[in-house]
Amino acid sequence: MLEPLPSDIPKFLEKYLPDNGPFITLTYAQSLDSRIAAAPGERTYISHAQTKTMTHYIRAHHDAILVGINTVLADNPSLNCRYGTNNSKIRPVVIDPNFRFFSEDINNYKLIDNYKRNNNLKPIFIISEDISIKDESVLNLIDIIQIPLVDGIMSWSDIFTSLHNLGLKSIMVEGGATIINTLLTTTLVDSLIITIGPIFLGNEGVQVSPSSQVKLENINWWTGIQDSVMCANLKK
Amino acid sequence: MLEPLPSDIPKFLEKYLPDNGPFITLTYAQSLDSRIAAAPGERTYISHAQTKTMTHYIRAHHDAILVGINTVLADNPSLNCRYGTNNSKIRPVVIDPNFRFFSEDINNYKLIDNYKRNNNLKPIFIISEDISIKDESVLNLIDIIQIPLVDGIMSWSDIFTSLHNLGLKSIMVEGGATIINTLLTTTLVDSLIITIGPIFLGNEGVQVSPSSQVKLENINWWTGIQDSVMCANLKK
Repeated sequence: MLEPLPSDIPKFLEKYLPDNGPFITLTYAQSLDSRIAAAPGERTYISHAQTKTMTHYIRAHHDAILVGINTVLADNPSLNCRYGTNNSKIRPVVIDPNFRFFSEDINNYKLIDNYKRNNNLKPIFIISEDISIKDESVLNLIDIIQIPLVDGIMSWSDIFTSLHNLGLKSIMVEGGATIINTLLTTTLVDSLIITIGPIFLGNEGVQVSPSSQVKLENINWWTGIQDSVMCANLKK
Repeated sequence: MLEPLPSDIPKFLEKYLPDNGPFITLTYAQSLDSRIAAAPGERTYISHAQTKTMTHYIRAHHDAILVGINTVLADNPSLNCRYGTNNSKIRPVVIDPNFRFFSEDINNYKLIDNYKRNNNLKPIFIISEDISIKDESVLNLIDIIQIPLVDGIMSWSDIFTSLHNLGLKSIMVEGGATIINTLLTTTLVDSLIITIGPIFLGNEGVQVSPSSQVKLENINWWTGIQDSVMCANLKK
């Protein structure tokens, strides 16, 4: 069960949520020292239950949640939407260039289980064009999009275009650090929503910091019982 | 001239300012990605004019401001107090184990100039016991406290005790990163006041992140035009 949504959150978020067109929201929770986890692969609780409810409220406004494969392997996240009385289903999207997920026992993962039990939509894995799918039975449980590598990496613009082409207009990107750091230096993010939890996770933690300066505009803060949340747009 | 102090700041800070006993306040401004400067030695503006006024208001409640020598050499800070109609004078304290300041043309520095023009109190330099003062005329412009090195470093507890013994009970520590990171892992900080400016300075910046996790309590947030300010106590 989620805690109730603080009553002033909908108004606070209003200007930062998708309208009808294609829309990319980047959102995550960090410590004061900009860590999203205490160590690589370690699930870390940073935000208060009320800001967790906010995350599910934001998910309810999107067609898809996108994370990196490291986040899936480390946290085994549900990637569902538990806000409201009718839980809205949402498409989990996992960026996994080398298709590492295929080497796992994928039935152990909540995003697979949720789909099998009809509790959520079928996950999409975004993998490199160079990978050949050896066992096509995996396609019963996940959809696959293959993207060309340019200089060894997939382009964010190719990724979002392929998702928009599937009818997934609004995409909520939740992490992890590599995903966030690379996306922050593009011009593709429509809204940024960061929860700051009042703790220092320390310099062994997994940090968010882009490779160059990023300026913001239309800044708004909300403060809860424990956390502060900042909404903004990236200056283009 | 400083901007006016936001009217709700005194109440917000009340519980986090010194009473009559010895008191250590740690305060600084950081970016979202926990950088206090865009690059080593580069003076970087992070906070809005209204939170700058807050800094001078906080200074007015302290006997001394403490910074590291890197901050003095990089930023040439005034380390004075410009809040209120009668500017309160305050003691600048610089941690400078190897007395690098002595190799500088010290008359170029604002904290020296302010003292010479009777605009502020005499700066104190805290240097290693191993340093011998070759030119005692420097003592006309600064006071020196010598502290023993234990395993190559001066202990924070020795530093604060020596300042308290001079009658400087309340000390406001403002940076830079080494000072902040080491002090965060002690039990000596009575109040923590962090201003968060809504910008990413990027991973070439000078970062605050202590060597281990630090938990906080009695957390309070204030939001201004641009920045968010968090006050807290370190959990001991």
